[in-house]
Amino acid sequence: MVKFASSLSKESCVDVEGIVSVPKTPIKGTTQQVEVQVRKFYCVSKALPTLPFNLEDASRSEFEIKKKLQAGEQVVGVNQDTRLNNRFLDLRTPDNQETFQISSQVKSVFSQFLLREEFCWIDTPKLIAGSSEGGSAVFKLDYNGQPACLAQSPQLHKQMSICAGFGRVFVMGPVFRAEKSDTTRHICEFTGLDVEMEIKEHYSEVMDIVDHLFVAIFDHLNKECQKALDTIREKFPFEPLKYLRKTLRLTFQEGVQMLKVAGVEVDPLGDLSIESERKLGQLVLEKYDTVFYILHHYPLAIRPFYTMPCYDDTAYSNSFDVFIRGEEIISGSQRIHIPELLAARAEARGIDVKTMSTYIDSFRYGAFPHGGFGAGLERVVMLFCGFNF
Amino acid sequence: MVKFASSLSKESCVDVEGIVSVPKTPIKGTTQQVEVQVRKFYCVSKALPTLPFNLEDASRSEFEIKKKLQAGEQVVGVNQDTRLNNRFLDLRTPDNQETFQISSQVKSVFSQFLLREEFCWIDTPKLIAGSSEGGSAVFKLDYNGQPACLAQSPQLHKQMSICAGFGRVFVMGPVFRAEKSDTTRHICEFTGLDVEMEIKEHYSEVMDIVDHLFVAIFDHLNKECQKALDTIREKFPFEPLKYLRKTLRLTFQEGVQMLKVAGVEVDPLGDLSIESERKLGQLVLEKYDTVFYILHHYPLAIRPFYTMPCYDDTAYSNSFDVFIRGEEIISGSQRIHIPELLAARAEARGIDVKTMSTYIDSFRYGAFPHGGFGAGLERVVMLFCGFNF
Repeated sequence: MVKFASSLSKESCVDVEGIVSVPKTPIKGTTQQVEVQVRKFYCVSKALPTLPFNLEDASRSEFEIKKKLQAGEQVVGVNQDTRLNNRFLDLRTPDNQETFQISSQVKSVFSQFLLREEFCWIDTPKLIAGSSEGGSAVFKLDYNGQPACLAQSPQLHKQMSICAGFGRVFVMGPVFRAEKSDTTRHICEFTGLDVEMEIKEHYSEVMDIVDHLFVAIFDHLNKECQKALDTIREKFPFEPLKYLRKTLRLTFQEGVQMLKVAGVEVDPLGDLSIESERKLGQLVLEKYDTVFYILHHYPLAIRPFYTMPCYDDTAYSNSFDVFIRGEEIISGSQRIHIPELLAARAEARGIDVKTMSTYIDSFRYGAFPHGGFGAGLERVVMLFCGFNF
Repeated sequence: MVKFASSLSKESCVDVEGIVSVPKTPIKGTTQQVEVQVRKFYCVSKALPTLPFNLEDASRSEFEIKKKLQAGEQVVGVNQDTRLNNRFLDLRTPDNQETFQISSQVKSVFSQFLLREEFCWIDTPKLIAGSSEGGSAVFKLDYNGQPACLAQSPQLHKQMSICAGFGRVFVMGPVFRAEKSDTTRHICEFTGLDVEMEIKEHYSEVMDIVDHLFVAIFDHLNKECQKALDTIREKFPFEPLKYLRKTLRLTFQEGVQMLKVAGVEVDPLGDLSIESERKLGQLVLEKYDTVFYILHHYPLAIRPFYTMPCYDDTAYSNSFDVFIRGEEIISGSQRIHIPELLAARAEARGIDVKTMSTYIDSFRYGAFPHGGFGAGLERVVMLFCGFNF
């Protein structure tokens, strides 16, 4: 039996029958203090003798590789193409297994939190006519002889759901961007986490949901997923996420001022560059001891056409971005619910209003003030685990 | 103020400020025993004076319409095109509101049940190369100059996730079918509820999950959503779903025999027609007092190529369908985890094995026996609420 067992190739699947017993002499080198006395041993599925790569090689951390190399030892690495061409094998590494468990838990807390807050979990169409918001490139396809495309976000449909009287809705589903870029900030297909809700008095109600929802997600991961996080950390060391019980809110102007004091001049009515966002993240961490915060009251000109202008200063808008570890993770705002203003704002951006008449017309028969936000699941997991290297 | 209020068009949104009080003389004709003494009244969003249709007309049940017509009264109906062209308005009817709340709750129980059973909640790619399973038509598109298509199901990827060591996985997301048919059994885009899991000993383990999961869903809807169900029932009367604490399981042969006794001859190695399925549903209801049951051990020839043949009779397979109210709602099976057999079965169906080498190769490096099933969310809600008229 031992000969048979040792003849099996690595990664073969086996069935083992045996008796669990406590050995007379304590087992050394493991915390497990029982052993299985094997009686029967079957091979259920035999792996091909040569694996595309060894799982030990794929599981090794950068730190371990460096240490071995410094000690003059040889180390076999596995390059990304080999991993991706054998993704079913690459995913068997402990860090990949646990990353997907984290992702699974984020979806669970996201949905359960919002259901408790009386949001309705809807699905918006992915196959749509026209382009979903303008902006980034869309995937086009043929729908029974008619032109169609894949939705770049549930934006228009989640707003129309508010017009349909749902009060509060959320969507978890794929969104599609025909991106040519190949960075950690771009991906062709990802899982969008989208929320939309009626606003009773002020757009801060939307920021309240962001605040409580994401603190609930972070708390849950830290409390229930410590083993998973430790496994990931062994391969990719990262600092635990620093966040406050009540999420810090700064206005865009306050952010600009902090940067100015630190010697970084930025256009007070322009967008922040990625470098300025990272710098501001550092300044916020030093001053407020958090890497999770909300920046709101953005200049109107740099936000999508459906963003509600501030009532007292139309150079600014009722909008916000949320940052983790210096990277934008959520974008949200109050939306324009007045059809005439919405059409005018779309036109001002060069959008052909006729192509979105279904959307604009849905505000003509009673539309509550509303707002919402969107995040990307993969990005939330990436930034929680500090994968943004 | 009363004049202003009464001048507003129907469906306009208003803000009301007032004092809640208990009137001296009890309020008649309502269960609510408090009233609001209005002090301020604002219009937040004015609806256009003429609605595309009246919500009362759209909310009226067939029964009410019949009754009114019989009494010689005039009734205005709303045809489906008008509803669909103004879906944001149609969705404001109470039955539509509650139907989406039911759908929301089904997703919640589905995900929470499976998470408790240690399934990992994954997302499979919707944009893929090649066609996902053969079978029904696919939507094709251009992916940066390369041919791609929309996944018709997560089948291949959820199986590959089992090969990737996840043990138990589920997916909730859109699936796409380029269907030309226009029946209650066909839809171009729907939300798939998909499960895949390692099998330790027998494919009945998969049926156990189906059994417990769907009983949990039905129990939850009956317990927590009575108000929603009553609202739907007011418009579309339906019998509460009859189901057993332990779901009935019949073999295909037993089903064929029941039909035979009832005078319906069917091919014991062929598929059941829709009429035979409905007839069998009636017979099962009469004999076992349930409209929810599992039919398993189907003929191999009528199942997808990846279905595991029975080890003792290869004319049959380790597969099952699940029925509600005489309609198929879930399809599942043990899958072939032996790459040589899988390739042979695909070839026998005329599938070009080269186009699915990524899938077949994932079974070459150790693959556990596994099985799973898929259902459609809209179909679950439709059949629970007896919308299949």
